[in-house]
Amino acid sequence: MDYGAAKPVDKAVIEAMTPYFSKVYGNPASFYTIGFDAYNAVIKARNQVAKLIGAIQGEIIFTSCATESNNLALLGITQRYKKKGKRVVISEIEHISIINIAKELTRRGFEVLHAPVDNEGILDIEKFRELVNDNTVLVSIMAANNEIGTIQPIKEIAKIVHDHDAIFHTDAVAAVGQIPINVKEMGIDLLSFSSNDLYGPRGVGAIYLKSGLRAKPHMIGGGQEGGQRSGSENVPGIVGMGKAAEITLETMKDESKRLKKLRDRLSKGLLESIQESYMNGHPTKRIPNNANIRFSFIEGEALILSLDQIGINASSGSACLAKTLEPSHVLRALGLAHEYAHGSLVFTLGKGNNEEQVDYVIDSMPDVVHKLRAMSPLTPKELK
Amino acid sequence: MDYGAAKPVDKAVIEAMTPYFSKVYGNPASFYTIGFDAYNAVIKARNQVAKLIGAIQGEIIFTSCATESNNLALLGITQRYKKKGKRVVISEIEHISIINIAKELTRRGFEVLHAPVDNEGILDIEKFRELVNDNTVLVSIMAANNEIGTIQPIKEIAKIVHDHDAIFHTDAVAAVGQIPINVKEMGIDLLSFSSNDLYGPRGVGAIYLKSGLRAKPHMIGGGQEGGQRSGSENVPGIVGMGKAAEITLETMKDESKRLKKLRDRLSKGLLESIQESYMNGHPTKRIPNNANIRFSFIEGEALILSLDQIGINASSGSACLAKTLEPSHVLRALGLAHEYAHGSLVFTLGKGNNEEQVDYVIDSMPDVVHKLRAMSPLTPKELK
Repeated sequence: MDYGAAKPVDKAVIEAMTPYFSKVYGNPASFYTIGFDAYNAVIKARNQVAKLIGAIQGEIIFTSCATESNNLALLGITQRYKKKGKRVVISEIEHISIINIAKELTRRGFEVLHAPVDNEGILDIEKFRELVNDNTVLVSIMAANNEIGTIQPIKEIAKIVHDHDAIFHTDAVAAVGQIPINVKEMGIDLLSFSSNDLYGPRGVGAIYLKSGLRAKPHMIGGGQEGGQRSGSENVPGIVGMGKAAEITLETMKDESKRLKKLRDRLSKGLLESIQESYMNGHPTKRIPNNANIRFSFIEGEALILSLDQIGINASSGSACLAKTLEPSHVLRALGLAHEYAHGSLVFTLGKGNNEEQVDYVIDSMPDVVHKLRAMSPLTPKELK
Repeated sequence: MDYGAAKPVDKAVIEAMTPYFSKVYGNPASFYTIGFDAYNAVIKARNQVAKLIGAIQGEIIFTSCATESNNLALLGITQRYKKKGKRVVISEIEHISIINIAKELTRRGFEVLHAPVDNEGILDIEKFRELVNDNTVLVSIMAANNEIGTIQPIKEIAKIVHDHDAIFHTDAVAAVGQIPINVKEMGIDLLSFSSNDLYGPRGVGAIYLKSGLRAKPHMIGGGQEGGQRSGSENVPGIVGMGKAAEITLETMKDESKRLKKLRDRLSKGLLESIQESYMNGHPTKRIPNNANIRFSFIEGEALILSLDQIGINASSGSACLAKTLEPSHVLRALGLAHEYAHGSLVFTLGKGNNEEQVDYVIDSMPDVVHKLRAMSPLTPKELK
């Protein structure tokens, strides 16, 4: 139940990729048949990926991961359009890659502002409106948060950004595949997403770059991907991401409904059976697969290791930060104290989960929580 | 016979990767069993890759491709050590990724000098010595050239670089797997290489970063790869590169011998049977799989398309540049006129090639060359 950290690659995706490892293994730049075949496979995948988010083929650039997409978006766009202004606005609850790239922007002389969220993780639109001005070159607000699942009002945000002729980027890694995303309807200029979050292979990501926009390339070299991303194309990976996007488009509606039902059963079950447990994030404006629950007087890492022993995988926040043992900056941004942020558990459900598993978690977790609380000196007597 | 452009992934490599797509699919940063398993798989691969070049595990950083390794080496090292000096020296025949990254260095205020090569493609050591001074921060000279196959005197070059306390990077994409490389014995500080050139999957590369050296990260984010390369690890790809490195280490000696014999048979056969044909590059100081032959009065692209029709794949130079139709900067650096540079054909042999195929090329090419020459107004009468 930690599909947010990593997803198994779909069987049909592996099948689609397989020929490109050792049969149609050509370089898309080569001037002969297996080169042309590889080139055409990349075009096909580009179309599949574009369709998932309502874009057109030429607006998709393949990268090696969402982190690279974020680097291209933030560094490449600010560099290219720096004459527009020096201000960059992000939210307080962005993924660590955005937070760290923004630090580099500060070093490069940009003024980076962090827009706050309310205690359910929704962007404070009024405060946000005050931060975006005509000197703003770029705004980057994630579509949905990877830890608390909160969905932002992207269309409304884009409108505010465009009122100041700024460029709007959204890190949509946690959103694409979970909720419908249409870049045109939502007014998105740049969107980062990854293959693995669609049950595609790792080592591939993409960025949507609205027609007419150009970034200063982040990966410099032979000029692949229309000059926007150099490096020989990872053809099997790209083909896999294309297939994964196609499958996602076909199955998302039903699968999201199924996951929402499972997720609601899980959170309801845990909140009812465990005292002093609370849901983090927004009760309804959240991606269907995410439940983030905090348990008072519990240390998150201990909980995760205990759950692993009984076959349950969950996360204390972003996998990217799991080993730092820092409390989540996302939970802190909601106004949670250190100790509560530490005692939170993130479930991200996925294809392999079912009702039986959910019930197993509901049945076995109270005991685990009780044991850990019994060991903690902070736990009040009545909970021991 | 264009293994330099793309290689099929080895069967044993695909087998090694397979479990990591959908079984051991954990995120190496996750705090539970399949996360730990993924983490350990990455460590194992890092050891396998390190061993191939005589490095230790902690000195290998996985990237998404050799182009990314080159970006990290040139941009990241100059940024980190810019106080040392503003001069950067590369050779005239570097891969396009190095050439283009060096242009970015010029824009960033570095003084980039291009060291010349002789007409066989070997670095002119005396002229090189004059270019490297105490103000030099970084030197990047490729170990072997991807088009003409020339092997550079890396140890001698490294010595000159270190005499001026500069850092030495080598783009070894075309060399690793073809000739023995030992970073310690050769005095290499940074070395870029790719997985696919070892018959591993695309979408993975690596850089050797000598113990004690740190680059300013090129890919900013969650701090994976010891903070030097962010982005969730492409575990199946990394496992594949590890396996490919292991196989390469076991098979290289015999395979190189086999390829050299085939290559010599091919070049001898073509040079003997086709008038006005010449070998580009050095007669002996070249990687065993490479033959680069120029045919006067021939247009390279026409030759490649004609050969494709009879089942022969070769290249007019670097695949990364195949579609630009520019004459190769490498051949131009040897002093070849435009028209000769255009009429050159690169064969890069590999695992799937055998004597029968070589003889087929030798038998069928004279006819193809003759037909194309007959069509060209530049061809002298006696060759038509």
